[in-house]
Amino acid sequence: MKHQMQTEILKAEVLIEAIPYIRRFAGSIVVVKYGGSAMVDENLKKSVIQDIAMLKYIGLKPVVVHGGGKEITSLLDRLGKKSEFLDGLRVTDEETAQVAEMVLSGSIAKALVDELEGVGIKAVGISGKDGRTMLCSRKLDEKGRDLGFVGQIDKVDTSLLDTLLANNFVPVVSPVGVDGKGNTYNINADYAASAVAGALSAQKLMFLTDVEGILKDKDDPSSILRTLSKAQALSYIADGTVKGGMIPKVQCCIDGLEKGVESVHVLDGRVSHAILLEIFTTKGIGTMVTDKEIV
Amino acid sequence: MKHQMQTEILKAEVLIEAIPYIRRFAGSIVVVKYGGSAMVDENLKKSVIQDIAMLKYIGLKPVVVHGGGKEITSLLDRLGKKSEFLDGLRVTDEETAQVAEMVLSGSIAKALVDELEGVGIKAVGISGKDGRTMLCSRKLDEKGRDLGFVGQIDKVDTSLLDTLLANNFVPVVSPVGVDGKGNTYNINADYAASAVAGALSAQKLMFLTDVEGILKDKDDPSSILRTLSKAQALSYIADGTVKGGMIPKVQCCIDGLEKGVESVHVLDGRVSHAILLEIFTTKGIGTMVTDKEIV
Amino acid sequence: MKHQMQTEILKAEVLIEAIPYIRRFAGSIVVVKYGGSAMVDENLKKSVIQDIAMLKYIGLKPVVVHGGGKEITSLLDRLGKKSEFLDGLRVTDEETAQVAEMVLSGSIAKALVDELEGVGIKAVGISGKDGRTMLCSRKLDEKGRDLGFVGQIDKVDTSLLDTLLANNFVPVVSPVGVDGKGNTYNINADYAASAVAGALSAQKLMFLTDVEGILKDKDDPSSILRTLSKAQALSYIADGTVKGGMIPKVQCCIDGLEKGVESVHVLDGRVSHAILLEIFTTKGIGTMVTDKEIV
Amino acid sequence: MKHQMQTEILKAEVLIEAIPYIRRFAGSIVVVKYGGSAMVDENLKKSVIQDIAMLKYIGLKPVVVHGGGKEITSLLDRLGKKSEFLDGLRVTDEETAQVAEMVLSGSIAKALVDELEGVGIKAVGISGKDGRTMLCSRKLDEKGRDLGFVGQIDKVDTSLLDTLLANNFVPVVSPVGVDGKGNTYNINADYAASAVAGALSAQKLMFLTDVEGILKDKDDPSSILRTLSKAQALSYIADGTVKGGMIPKVQCCIDGLEKGVESVHVLDGRVSHAILLEIFTTKGIGTMVTDKEIV
Amino acid sequence: MKHQMQTEILKAEVLIEAIPYIRRFAGSIVVVKYGGSAMVDENLKKSVIQDIAMLKYIGLKPVVVHGGGKEITSLLDRLGKKSEFLDGLRVTDEETAQVAEMVLSGSIAKALVDELEGVGIKAVGISGKDGRTMLCSRKLDEKGRDLGFVGQIDKVDTSLLDTLLANNFVPVVSPVGVDGKGNTYNINADYAASAVAGALSAQKLMFLTDVEGILKDKDDPSSILRTLSKAQALSYIADGTVKGGMIPKVQCCIDGLEKGVESVHVLDGRVSHAILLEIFTTKGIGTMVTDKEIV
Amino acid sequence: MKHQMQTEILKAEVLIEAIPYIRRFAGSIVVVKYGGSAMVDENLKKSVIQDIAMLKYIGLKPVVVHGGGKEITSLLDRLGKKSEFLDGLRVTDEETAQVAEMVLSGSIAKALVDELEGVGIKAVGISGKDGRTMLCSRKLDEKGRDLGFVGQIDKVDTSLLDTLLANNFVPVVSPVGVDGKGNTYNINADYAASAVAGALSAQKLMFLTDVEGILKDKDDPSSILRTLSKAQALSYIADGTVKGGMIPKVQCCIDGLEKGVESVHVLDGRVSHAILLEIFTTKGIGTMVTDKEIV
Repeated sequence: MKHQMQTEILKAEVLIEAIPYIRRFAGSIVVVKYGGSAMVDENLKKSVIQDIAMLKYIGLKPVVVHGGGKEITSLLDRLGKKSEFLDGLRVTDEETAQVAEMVLSGSIAKALVDELEGVGIKAVGISGKDGRTMLCSRKLDEKGRDLGFVGQIDKVDTSLLDTLLANNFVPVVSPVGVDGKGNTYNINADYAASAVAGALSAQKLMFLTDVEGILKDKDDPSSILRTLSKAQALSYIADGTVKGGMIPKVQCCIDGLEKGVESVHVLDGRVSHAILLEIFTTKGIGTMVTDKEIV
Repeated sequence: MKHQMQTEILKAEVLIEAIPYIRRFAGSIVVVKYGGSAMVDENLKKSVIQDIAMLKYIGLKPVVVHGGGKEITSLLDRLGKKSEFLDGLRVTDEETAQVAEMVLSGSIAKALVDELEGVGIKAVGISGKDGRTMLCSRKLDEKGRDLGFVGQIDKVDTSLLDTLLANNFVPVVSPVGVDGKGNTYNINADYAASAVAGALSAQKLMFLTDVEGILKDKDDPSSILRTLSKAQALSYIADGTVKGGMIPKVQCCIDGLEKGVESVHVLDGRVSHAILLEIFTTKGIGTMVTDKEIV
Repeated sequence: MKHQMQTEILKAEVLIEAIPYIRRFAGSIVVVKYGGSAMVDENLKKSVIQDIAMLKYIGLKPVVVHGGGKEITSLLDRLGKKSEFLDGLRVTDEETAQVAEMVLSGSIAKALVDELEGVGIKAVGISGKDGRTMLCSRKLDEKGRDLGFVGQIDKVDTSLLDTLLANNFVPVVSPVGVDGKGNTYNINADYAASAVAGALSAQKLMFLTDVEGILKDKDDPSSILRTLSKAQALSYIADGTVKGGMIPKVQCCIDGLEKGVESVHVLDGRVSHAILLEIFTTKGIGTMVTDKEIV
Repeated sequence: MKHQMQTEILKAEVLIEAIPYIRRFAGSIVVVKYGGSAMVDENLKKSVIQDIAMLKYIGLKPVVVHGGGKEITSLLDRLGKKSEFLDGLRVTDEETAQVAEMVLSGSIAKALVDELEGVGIKAVGISGKDGRTMLCSRKLDEKGRDLGFVGQIDKVDTSLLDTLLANNFVPVVSPVGVDGKGNTYNINADYAASAVAGALSAQKLMFLTDVEGILKDKDDPSSILRTLSKAQALSYIADGTVKGGMIPKVQCCIDGLEKGVESVHVLDGRVSHAILLEIFTTKGIGTMVTDKEIV
Repeated sequence: MKHQMQTEILKAEVLIEAIPYIRRFAGSIVVVKYGGSAMVDENLKKSVIQDIAMLKYIGLKPVVVHGGGKEITSLLDRLGKKSEFLDGLRVTDEETAQVAEMVLSGSIAKALVDELEGVGIKAVGISGKDGRTMLCSRKLDEKGRDLGFVGQIDKVDTSLLDTLLANNFVPVVSPVGVDGKGNTYNINADYAASAVAGALSAQKLMFLTDVEGILKDKDDPSSILRTLSKAQALSYIADGTVKGGMIPKVQCCIDGLEKGVESVHVLDGRVSHAILLEIFTTKGIGTMVTDKEIV
Repeated sequence: MKHQMQTEILKAEVLIEAIPYIRRFAGSIVVVKYGGSAMVDENLKKSVIQDIAMLKYIGLKPVVVHGGGKEITSLLDRLGKKSEFLDGLRVTDEETAQVAEMVLSGSIAKALVDELEGVGIKAVGISGKDGRTMLCSRKLDEKGRDLGFVGQIDKVDTSLLDTLLANNFVPVVSPVGVDGKGNTYNINADYAASAVAGALSAQKLMFLTDVEGILKDKDDPSSILRTLSKAQALSYIADGTVKGGMIPKVQCCIDGLEKGVESVHVLDGRVSHAILLEIFTTKGIGTMVTDKEIV
């Protein structure tokens, strides 16, 4: 009995330790890019849903932008359509875009909504089509090649997101866009998250990834960079410190800052409760890119 | 020139003729069940979108509930899954429910949203999962057989619909439900429309069908019933006047009235602008089921 | 039956054609200067009332400013008081101003209110005295002569107009002003309309006149100017293209633009539904004076 | 200097004495029927305007309903139209009703508005036509004779009055009504005041009259009745204590109470500041008819 | 490093465990009677402040009612005034009431406010005098003896509390009342807390005491009653199960229930974070008195 | 009877005379520094309460900041603690600050609240601790000496004051501050009033003093300065016209102006209704320091 009480008191103390962080982030908009292992492993999935719910309950305003590349490939396979990639980017004809939309807006977003509702959070799955939230045109790849219906976001209209946030709904955003001529676009989810976070002037943008953070040496977890300014990030790309698959991640971080997000975080989504750990620990986890002074 | 002016004046007079109807229905919630030919024929499709836009512009509050049986069958076919029916009702295993959801919530709803946005209407595609709008359990068929994940609507939570309507969005509702245990349900769209209309205390619920209205003799369009009270509708079913495929339609009408809708309309969706014709003509078109005195 | 349906469908299409215009002008404040034949002929009168009602029903905010010169003269006659004019402007002693007020504020405005209420529009008749909406001083004529209680508008206080518009009332404004010392002023109605439209930052100011529009040759209707910029209007006055009775009209148009109205229209009030035709046709009718690019 | 200060302090004490009354009536709607000598004598007129302004400034919500019989007769005379009366009630043909409207709505109401604006009060002159505030039908006299366009008030729509009061305007109401068919009605002002006060659930309805109050003996001012319950008022009429011209006044008081007014006051409008005296003295002045317990 | 991460994850899991409780009590008003050891021991004091802050941050609405008997006695001593008690109740002459007020409203309440502000909570110290929150008369003791200015609460006016809660301030209430004649009353803090909780229709009323809860045998902590219905509480008093100093506590619980509080809790204030433990553990701690079904 | 009526009419005229002043100051925030004789003499006390109530009733927003030096000294005496002064300023050790707080926040503020409530005004006693309204640090005296817990106001947070004013409460502010580290500060009340008035952008700040106003010759009341600009005030200090005890008063006036108050008044609190006299007489009384043009 006594012992149990002691355990409970220790737990209460953990809650109490959270106060300064709750106080600091109350009312903040936090955009979470949800993807990678955290979308596959059932335990991690549950932990992400709980973390988002917790953010909502303590007064933050989470927005989820999800990915779904594997699920798209899987449905294309079942439909006998081969996924074609060019330097890692999906070649997206009209049919592919439509399949992607069904998977993202019809299956994944609604499943996430259902899980959030399951822990008492009011949630709504929307795509860039709803309220014309993300207006797109064709995005060429780095080499200037047209990969089809891959969306370049030209305009984020936040009126639907604003309405949902103001009425206590958590928006779950599918990276699907539209161009005003009836075309459907598949958008890179990291890029969609960064655009949405920027348009909402979010305090935080968190990328749940399958790496520890931004690493100087991608094979050495201990080479993780804890904090980076925009200038540093740019110079690390320039001088080759950041290289390969790390480059697009870092560019999305820089992109978020430029669009008005206060801090962008590359988190290890393979760690349970990565989102809460970032919010509720002094130094956070993973890598933070920001130009704000770190208090 | 003169002649053209005359034509324009005649058009202005048509607008003027609309005033008493605009006046009468200003602020009314109108739920439109969208399905059948009107969802297939491109011209009819365009005419439905225009009609809904017009309702919105003159101050009504339209809500769309759409169907999509053919599209579900088509995707199931492509996936090599045979659609099985029992007395006309789809046997819905878990996979079928998931395919239905992708088609309804991911493809059809978003396409409708895009068309409404194209005529300047702010629209949002939601399903019964978003905001737990439609909480379901398994619905047995008339003979008490379990057809799988076919949804019986136990509760409509209008908080998301209310938020969208109050903020000038047109909700486009997919007939997909959820049971709080992670199961997805395919719901009969007529039935979903009637539940939503009832929960919103809609003034009008309109079914766009492929028949002229409720016919005494299904092969004789001239046997159409123009207006019906609930009592008459019940007696027509009882005495066999209404029979066969007409029965579920009439039951959905009765169901709508019982849930608080003022009048329920069975319209011929094969006629252009059927929705506007119902609103803007004295006697309306198709069949109206109501217990309100007809003015 | 079939035929009747076709007719109804054609009518519905007319409504549908109106959508882009409704969309464009939703929420716009439109000030209508009502006078001339349109105030005398019973059919035209009815058409003006219907047009204003239609504007209100589709979401615009109409404000009516009316004239009444003939009615004033008629009552003065009955009272045995001769109307005296100097270069077409009424010499207005105290008694004349009081008679004008009774006719304008007591008779014409209230009759217009009643007709609008008759088509379901909430309307209120106010003059420049109510809420001190129009504060005046004596206006001298072009030659610097004092014609008595002819009002120069020094200040428009829109608080009453704002209150009425915000609460869905259509204000019907009599061109009667006040000077803070108990004096009543008769104001030229064109001038009052322009002042009110400017103070409200109206999107449109429409003058219902007895001419086709602004004509280069006043005897040749085909010499009508369809659109004019402010600069063009000024140069047409300067170079004598616009002359005689056209000059004050054009000056009122320029005045409206300078006070912040987006476009000013000189319409032929002898044409049925002139107001709707202006709103619902691509090129409008009559003459439009604006510095906005015409889309 | 000292002396002047003493005088000022005494004045301050008068203000202080007002506190309990201000406290008691804060927020109350007070309908003042303005007529008789108080509308003729310049000093009394000024005193009424000041009193109404004072009520407004200390947080009450005054509404003025004015009369104007003499002014109507005077304009009819000038127009060569003889005023005809039947048992003291004006026979009102269409022309008479129109003249009455011009005088009441066009001249008297606007003049009162101007005087209130002169002391810093926002005021608006409305008649029963504006916002269809008073919907009428023909009122027969006691003997069942039709006197023409004399209004029986069938419905008071308070939406315009509510809007004006909520936005800090003092409504000045002309006793002119309308019947929905374009007819104008002259309404007895006492009766209009009582209807308006009832519809607004006013705390007080004050009749400014040319008598001391309700007198048992109309020739003996000392026979004044200070307070009357509805029951007493009815019995005084029944037993002949109240007779002749007093009867309609008393009936208007009873009428007000029945419509929901808390107390109705017959005040001597020939006394300066009669309105303030009623509010700011313990026992009030004139006669109070009420069923509330007098505190 | 790894180890530290594990610790942090465990902490995050503690936060996650709190979700169902946060969800259940979001928006609830919780009145905490603060007194006893928890007001003396510095660590307990800090833990109470943290608990209240935590409640506020996760969306509950805490209200604090504090005691202060020891501090009053101490100041009376310093002023050379002997505290007199009759059966444990303080005899309260005018001077004593004034000293009590200085201690309670001037010293203790403001110190609590300061501590709450120190953890980022907006707080305001009020007494029953502010906004006439607690109107009192003299309370006789059980034997009918007048102990002086000991307050019986006749009316709680919640308008100030409502204003503070609606504007996110935590009210800290001193148990000092007033009688409308200028007299100051010392109120028993348990009783004040119960009155305030009832008037606010609080979900929870928590008494921080120096006992484990309600005990059958006051010397045996294991005889604690975990939950009690009102009926049980009454019968325990009647049959002598609850006796001595326990009786007033139990009566305060019953009193709270009768005034509309959902559940009343007797907590052991000597345990750290007793408030959070009650909220965040399934069975709570101490004794709960309620007539609601326990879920 | 007649005579009494005449008296009442004269009183009504006094009320009427107040209209232009009520009109001028409606909605204004007036901060009253309450101290000196007006806090001691029972009649003056009553007159101040009445004046503040009157301001509230006629639509101004009074805020009271009170002093209490004598009462602090008196309680210190009773506690056997000697008050020590250095050049007239109280040396304030921790105990002294705590005693001051009990007297100011616990006794005086609550008594004032009670008196205001007694005349129907909703009032709340707050100190600089509530809502951290006044954040302080140690203030050194002119010679740079540290006198202990004498507060220098570093920041006024008006959120609590704004909340109270917006909800029709009269704030009664004790000059007690806090430093965020748990220390309590005694603040000079003139200085607190000036800081509060500045932070609220008050229209008027009134000091109730024991002198006629600012005197050129402190022994000659007739040397009173009626109005002063900031520049004049500074020059009078510079050239020695204002000297001795007058200097801090004048500096507080200058301070108020610099913080944004429109006019600062030094009033003779020994005169009944000094506050009302200032508001309701053309030239006011005492001395007004302002840079606004005097109308």
